Amino acid sequence: MTTRVALAGASGKMGRLFSGIIDSLDDFELVASLGSSSELSEMDGVDLVVDVTVPGVSQRIVDHAVSQGINVLVGTSGWSGDRIQVLARRLDALPDQGVIIIPNFSLGSVLSTSLATVAARFFDSIEIVESHRDTKVDSPSGTAVRTAELMMAARGDRGPVGAPHSDQRARGQQVASIPIHSLRLQGVVARQQVVFGGTDELVTITHDTISPSSYERGIRLALAAARTARGVTVGLDSLLDLGLDTPATSARKPAPGAPEHVSGQAAAASAL
Amino acid sequence: MTTRVALAGASGKMGRLFSGIIDSLDDFELVASLGSSSELSEMDGVDLVVDVTVPGVSQRIVDHAVSQGINVLVGTSGWSGDRIQVLARRLDALPDQGVIIIPNFSLGSVLSTSLATVAARFFDSIEIVESHRDTKVDSPSGTAVRTAELMMAARGDRGPVGAPHSDQRARGQQVASIPIHSLRLQGVVARQQVVFGGTDELVTITHDTISPSSYERGIRLALAAARTARGVTVGLDSLLDLGLDTPATSARKPAPGAPEHVSGQAAAASAL
Amino acid sequence: MTTRVALAGASGKMGRLFSGIIDSLDDFELVASLGSSSELSEMDGVDLVVDVTVPGVSQRIVDHAVSQGINVLVGTSGWSGDRIQVLARRLDALPDQGVIIIPNFSLGSVLSTSLATVAARFFDSIEIVESHRDTKVDSPSGTAVRTAELMMAARGDRGPVGAPHSDQRARGQQVASIPIHSLRLQGVVARQQVVFGGTDELVTITHDTISPSSYERGIRLALAAARTARGVTVGLDSLLDLGLDTPATSARKPAPGAPEHVSGQAAAASAL
Amino acid sequence: MTTRVALAGASGKMGRLFSGIIDSLDDFELVASLGSSSELSEMDGVDLVVDVTVPGVSQRIVDHAVSQGINVLVGTSGWSGDRIQVLARRLDALPDQGVIIIPNFSLGSVLSTSLATVAARFFDSIEIVESHRDTKVDSPSGTAVRTAELMMAARGDRGPVGAPHSDQRARGQQVASIPIHSLRLQGVVARQQVVFGGTDELVTITHDTISPSSYERGIRLALAAARTARGVTVGLDSLLDLGLDTPATSARKPAPGAPEHVSGQAAAASAL
Repeated sequence: MTTRVALAGASGKMGRLFSGIIDSLDDFELVASLGSSSELSEMDGVDLVVDVTVPGVSQRIVDHAVSQGINVLVGTSGWSGDRIQVLARRLDALPDQGVIIIPNFSLGSVLSTSLATVAARFFDSIEIVESHRDTKVDSPSGTAVRTAELMMAARGDRGPVGAPHSDQRARGQQVASIPIHSLRLQGVVARQQVVFGGTDELVTITHDTISPSSYERGIRLALAAARTARGVTVGLDSLLDLGLDTPATSARKPAPGAPEHVSGQAAAASAL
Repeated sequence: MTTRVALAGASGKMGRLFSGIIDSLDDFELVASLGSSSELSEMDGVDLVVDVTVPGVSQRIVDHAVSQGINVLVGTSGWSGDRIQVLARRLDALPDQGVIIIPNFSLGSVLSTSLATVAARFFDSIEIVESHRDTKVDSPSGTAVRTAELMMAARGDRGPVGAPHSDQRARGQQVASIPIHSLRLQGVVARQQVVFGGTDELVTITHDTISPSSYERGIRLALAAARTARGVTVGLDSLLDLGLDTPATSARKPAPGAPEHVSGQAAAASAL
Repeated sequence: MTTRVALAGASGKMGRLFSGIIDSLDDFELVASLGSSSELSEMDGVDLVVDVTVPGVSQRIVDHAVSQGINVLVGTSGWSGDRIQVLARRLDALPDQGVIIIPNFSLGSVLSTSLATVAARFFDSIEIVESHRDTKVDSPSGTAVRTAELMMAARGDRGPVGAPHSDQRARGQQVASIPIHSLRLQGVVARQQVVFGGTDELVTITHDTISPSSYERGIRLALAAARTARGVTVGLDSLLDLGLDTPATSARKPAPGAPEHVSGQAAAASAL
Repeated sequence: MTTRVALAGASGKMGRLFSGIIDSLDDFELVASLGSSSELSEMDGVDLVVDVTVPGVSQRIVDHAVSQGINVLVGTSGWSGDRIQVLARRLDALPDQGVIIIPNFSLGSVLSTSLATVAARFFDSIEIVESHRDTKVDSPSGTAVRTAELMMAARGDRGPVGAPHSDQRARGQQVASIPIHSLRLQGVVARQQVVFGGTDELVTITHDTISPSSYERGIRLALAAARTARGVTVGLDSLLDLGLDTPATSARKPAPGAPEHVSGQAAAASAL
């Protein structure tokens, strides 16, 4: 059974990456490519909408697709917890529909963040060093911010990390108590290190990316799950069986502030 | 309630470390220190035997302690799966007794190995680089071998890693299909890196130790658990709530070759 | 004044890289592209021959160009010290001609190797860890071998490094006494680490490449120097003013076994 | 010939390290240990004064020793360029005397900084990441500041590095245009990384220290040179034949702002 796909944001970098992958898959067919001047109705009748536009547009695309009974795979970052909540409640009334939201398609990045949430419960010295190209305009990176927030959520009663003298300029920017240091360099695409300090020992989890090809595996996983998804699923880690049972990734022990996984009742009833 | 301890191997490096820690704890008291010329009966009547001797002696010490109804904390490496099996079956008949065997007291090391077993299920390029002082006579390190074996067990049906041209001399020594590279250098105490290669991305888990003080936290954890232990418990990770649900660390999904966790009755029934 | 270039090996990876760079330069013009079926005479009359063929062909191309009074830039590895000696003696009689041989155009790689030769004189524990794609068929890498040889030459009377238990399989392959460890992984293009161990300290020099674009700067430097070169110049470092005065890179203190820099009398008289 | 030593600051950490080393050397004898309540005259008559006090006291000790015709080895940081100038001019009139000032006795650290000054001339993306124990109260570390200043001096006309968006909090503290990021962690003694970014390549120079024993080699070198020193010598690198010919380390091509090496007559004539 071929899944007929409409791709919104087809001309962007992620759009072209999705196009190429969909073309390479036997059971997926790209039947509509939407750009900024397209009508939303151009997606009507497909089996799956892939949305790789920008945060300002993504909401309208998802709303329209859901109203048409079409599942959506969102590859746009910027969906807030509040917006996801609203969407999840709407989907509670639509048990046959689903939306998957993947802020980061890099398997290695998502896995590294998940491993970091496990380690975060055992060390009180934690800092993040992330390096990106000198053309990146913001800091810290979204992934570093998310990693810090998830580690803090996973710590639970353990509370904030020790981050002495964090008022000093060289000590970086604290996010959820964790200092983040951002390097902007020629010659690097993306590297993130999370460093955990204990008694005379250090644990470091490093992720290096050298090209957007690192997204391909995550995109294939997300496409494979998207047509039959139910409720709202957030994060590539939700599609992987990591075997981790941390607050951040588990539906069994939900943490109040965990932004990772939001499920309506349908999701709660499922095996997510 | 004070736990009265007999320490076998008191004059070795680990013995001195244990002595210092036991002295610093209010609820533990060192009442007997056994050396190579001691009688086993010198431990009789204590609440806990700590065995940090050598593999050739450890078996006799444990046997004697168990026969005297005393719990044991073993900090000696070298207990094989077979010997652990025999011990576990014996303890099945002694429901009020327990032995904890901890081959590695470093929290960071044990955690890093556990995280590596999670990552090992998602990448087919895996290699280990371990560095130790130039005075270390053997290679690869026991921790590296154990890490490789546990990663292989965690991979399950995924099978051996891709390790091209592993016949070449510079390609290291394969353990459970995974190449291990051993550096022997001045200026390093212990460092282990596990490198996972995917499509244009790398994940690296690094553990650095700079002194035996890194064992202290694990020793305290093990002492705290040892008096009331039941059955056989193997590995510091068994004493931590890592929230990992991998074959290598879980009693719920035991893997046939997993050497990590053996508990009395389950072990007797299993093929461990 | 435009330099008219004949490019031998134009259809290979390096050839295409050179083509693109020459096209982008105002003062260079590509006037002949030679492939495997070309006649050597097709290069006659140009100002500069760029040879990026293979070792087996390179000698004939250089011989022909020199006989035609044309300077050559060789970007092929595999010129042995003996062959370079013969070429240098021939050029002694041709004071108006020059050949530049660049086995590695990566500025960062060449610089890292040069820095390593400086450090090599101060530490007796030295090992190399190099990582390349899993498609690379040989090990250790040519750059690692060269780095080891140059470090050994720079050590002079200090002699071989301490490399204990180098007979063990996990201890890598020794080149010029220095153990080299070769990782072959998905997700990496090229990484080399040279580790120096001293008393409770480590110095590590790391070079990471993520694409062949890293050769561009070295190619521009070599092209700029090639038309007016005299004698034989070997290595990109010879074109850089590194400010290093080590045996391996200095004409003032030539080391007997140093493969880096070979000059005939003409070269000795020049300002190389 | 035994060198008779007076040690000022004998009870501090560096003092005890010096005591131990002097005791272990056949040709050195510790004949006076000065503390905060000692008279300066207690050093009179020795062959060498070793000053490992604090910046506020060091000046008086050196002045007294020089007035007594005794050579001094200063192991206190905090001697400013201005103060060194004054001292150098004074020693111009005392051709038989010398003072060696060593702010950092770690051979690996000093070598790493020197290598970094070589690399700094070839890359416009440079950042420093330094990690120290969480008990260190200041940031960035003195070594990082010095490394940044020396790299900037070595760059000469190349000028400041590119450090985009350095106003952002996560982008660290700029010293001599170079961003420095300071981590404060349990489990680390001292680590400094200098990262150089080029076109699709990175060079990283890392120095790790795991104990003050890493100073021993530098201390021995300094002691060996101190009795016969003439003029003012600054920095352990001045005692090493690094074979580097950079502005920062060479007397042959003095750079105006180079704080590293000051020798008597040359210093008086120059604008150092």
